[in-house]
Amino acid sequence: MKDTMISSLLDDKVITRLKEIFGADRVMTGKTDMITYSYDASFETQLHPREPEVAVIALSTEEVSECVKLANDYQIPVYPRGAATGQTGGAVSTKGGIMIDLSKMNRIVEIDYKNMQAIIEPGVVQNDLNEALKPYGLRFPPDPGSANMCTIGGMVANNSSGLRAVKYGVTRHYVLGMEVVLPTGEVIVTGGAKSKALKSVSGYDLAHLLIGSEGTLGIMTRLRLKLLPLPVTRGIVLCSFEQLEQAGEAVNAVFSSGLQPSAIEIMDFNCTKAVKMMKPEIDLPLDCEAVLVFEVDGAKEEVTSQVNRLKKVVEPYTNFLRFSDEPDECEQLWQARKLVGASVGLLKPGGFRVYGGEDICVPISRLPETLRAIHNIAEKYGIVCGIYGHVGDGNMHTGPVINRNNELEMTNVQKMIDDIHELAIEMEGTTTAEHGVGLVRAKYMDLEHGAAMDVMRAIKKTLDPNNILNPGKMALPN
Amino acid sequence: MKDTMISSLLDDKVITRLKEIFGADRVMTGKTDMITYSYDASFETQLHPREPEVAVIALSTEEVSECVKLANDYQIPVYPRGAATGQTGGAVSTKGGIMIDLSKMNRIVEIDYKNMQAIIEPGVVQNDLNEALKPYGLRFPPDPGSANMCTIGGMVANNSSGLRAVKYGVTRHYVLGMEVVLPTGEVIVTGGAKSKALKSVSGYDLAHLLIGSEGTLGIMTRLRLKLLPLPVTRGIVLCSFEQLEQAGEAVNAVFSSGLQPSAIEIMDFNCTKAVKMMKPEIDLPLDCEAVLVFEVDGAKEEVTSQVNRLKKVVEPYTNFLRFSDEPDECEQLWQARKLVGASVGLLKPGGFRVYGGEDICVPISRLPETLRAIHNIAEKYGIVCGIYGHVGDGNMHTGPVINRNNELEMTNVQKMIDDIHELAIEMEGTTTAEHGVGLVRAKYMDLEHGAAMDVMRAIKKTLDPNNILNPGKMALPN
Repeated sequence: MKDTMISSLLDDKVITRLKEIFGADRVMTGKTDMITYSYDASFETQLHPREPEVAVIALSTEEVSECVKLANDYQIPVYPRGAATGQTGGAVSTKGGIMIDLSKMNRIVEIDYKNMQAIIEPGVVQNDLNEALKPYGLRFPPDPGSANMCTIGGMVANNSSGLRAVKYGVTRHYVLGMEVVLPTGEVIVTGGAKSKALKSVSGYDLAHLLIGSEGTLGIMTRLRLKLLPLPVTRGIVLCSFEQLEQAGEAVNAVFSSGLQPSAIEIMDFNCTKAVKMMKPEIDLPLDCEAVLVFEVDGAKEEVTSQVNRLKKVVEPYTNFLRFSDEPDECEQLWQARKLVGASVGLLKPGGFRVYGGEDICVPISRLPETLRAIHNIAEKYGIVCGIYGHVGDGNMHTGPVINRNNELEMTNVQKMIDDIHELAIEMEGTTTAEHGVGLVRAKYMDLEHGAAMDVMRAIKKTLDPNNILNPGKMALPN
Repeated sequence: MKDTMISSLLDDKVITRLKEIFGADRVMTGKTDMITYSYDASFETQLHPREPEVAVIALSTEEVSECVKLANDYQIPVYPRGAATGQTGGAVSTKGGIMIDLSKMNRIVEIDYKNMQAIIEPGVVQNDLNEALKPYGLRFPPDPGSANMCTIGGMVANNSSGLRAVKYGVTRHYVLGMEVVLPTGEVIVTGGAKSKALKSVSGYDLAHLLIGSEGTLGIMTRLRLKLLPLPVTRGIVLCSFEQLEQAGEAVNAVFSSGLQPSAIEIMDFNCTKAVKMMKPEIDLPLDCEAVLVFEVDGAKEEVTSQVNRLKKVVEPYTNFLRFSDEPDECEQLWQARKLVGASVGLLKPGGFRVYGGEDICVPISRLPETLRAIHNIAEKYGIVCGIYGHVGDGNMHTGPVINRNNELEMTNVQKMIDDIHELAIEMEGTTTAEHGVGLVRAKYMDLEHGAAMDVMRAIKKTLDPNNILNPGKMALPN
């Protein structure tokens, strides 16, 4: 492979040393490779790809450590990257430098089923771990939509979650410890150097500082994860509401009843419409502002009991209700929710679904007014959108649909995205519940956090004095 | 009140300023008051009380901020304190300075039941919050043994938990955000300056750095807590095992079956004996190495189902089993476990139960050998002890019982405590699962954490450059 694009930062000496560390076949500088590493799943990097100068494929902690040491010595930026399924531009270069690809550090080191934990490398894909855990009757609960592609390292870096967070929490809740390469190249282990304890309050919990720090404070090279038993079976209640407010009331009534659904998903009228366009035979009413899908889990008879209680609680609010505690029927009822992501683009002929402002989260009580406000914003800019999400957390995924060749829509969708993020903060919410900050939400950070940003910047400066790790993300120094 | 004990650090100017901030009646320097503030619930501070030079009672964030600013200007140590129910000497002075009593900042600011959260001041006692939440069908789940006395600020500072952590997690999992006075006196809000979101990944999660930092990085003045629905009802299975190993196998079998008990408590043979000494009529066998108490929760019919499943799973391992899904009977079955703390002192006539080495946690699979090893250590030093704890997490509370007038026992119990902590690390465990480090476990931190301690010290130095906040704790600089 020909070495090209080597800037002044990255002189031959550095490339030579990288080849010593990784072997020549795992050090890439060719244009095609750089393009491959120039984007993630974000709209922003699709519009503006950002190429690194060199990419390396890491296979061990020692390699990562040596690479970071080298980068720190020469003050060259390093960008850790997993499967690049992120929506925020978190795993791309901001100013040349070294892309460190961790997706091949994908060994499941140990499944210690007796102690309800697994030790893995960061490149393990979420579904692969769960497949490996099945024979033990265990699972790693966090369930992002990209579970069949995303690496667990990426999930930890972003503190990902998904639709079952309402009962099972987020990735953070399942990280017991980690081995981390610090920005100096030094390797530490958090949560006890040799610990396999399930619970500890010994010392600052550095793992919890690193979780969600998006590769700006260290590169995780090994993760110790907490596992849970597989749920035996599931049940579904699907129902629709004439008014958004009734859906909100139904959710409150369910929580007040003492029920703890494993998922509470919402789809607005546009999502319902899009799903019907894709699959007209699907059993969903169109005369409603919102559809809710409740899932419960447990042993068979407990599920039946929960489904019956749920039905009773939501019936007064709904004008359409389907339910089941049989696996096949449940699968069918889930289908409506499953098809949303794929169908929302149908809302506009030739439409392109933009990921932007797609991850805000507001207090549950403010969901109805927030959904209405988003549609008002969309209308103001002449853009159609569908809104769906994890209503039990208040987390809403807005899907604006535009024509990419329409310049006005391209401009307006950016304005719409800004407005949605500002709306989230106005509604006492957050700009991102599970996708992260990266490049695309950096500009809202000061508004959202105020003086706390100074503390974040001070911590970054302490751990990464030369600012080499994933610089220019999260409103930290570029 | 007469000003006494004023050292060179704390000149009249400082006392005068403290009186301006708090009002003269909330600034104390008298000997009796200093003694009151010189210990917590730890054995260490009972042996060696440590008096501050002045104590102030804070009622507002502004007061705390002004006090910390003053302390930072004059480089005077400040020790935050709640109810002082801690077992580690975390809330006492190490070198004179200012004790800041937060127990009167005990307002429940808001119960936002629609959004499943509460905003409180740090001095609110855990049970008081839960009493206030009952009418809403909600609760704040973490349940330390001291719930009727301990402040939630202290729980967050120590990341406390309790017997239901096996299902519901630890305090950390229920903190959504906090207002904190930094060691400079500056006030920040973590998790979004104005947020009421239930889920966020925006920026470094500073709350998670502060949780468990034992008052060394900031003083929390307001907490935003996540709430859960009250469980409708509970069920109990109590069973005993001839051999410790069978108890371990039973726990593994329960997890493998997909059941998620809300508590799994263990009592060793000495605890059983002590409970029987206190209450001979209690229905417990003496011919066993361990007793397990499983609790399940949920709606009535779900509890009945879970109790039946549990019984089936544990029956092959046990030689004695009682169960119930009726509240009164459950209460009776719990009694055995409830009496342990109070009865363990009976193991020796005139015995005094020492809190030391009382909070180790090991991987579940190593519980039987750890329990045996602790009894061997106890035997080596001629000390009797009972061991009980949260077996689902591997967290064991060892209760050595000594005669405080016996010098040899007083010396030996300290050696025993050291041995137990070292054993915990040897067994791939941790020295503390829920009680914290404070003064008493500082000496084991380097052994437990290795190079990670440098990162903790660097963060402490960054946020508290003058080392004024709770100095000398957690193996951070004195």
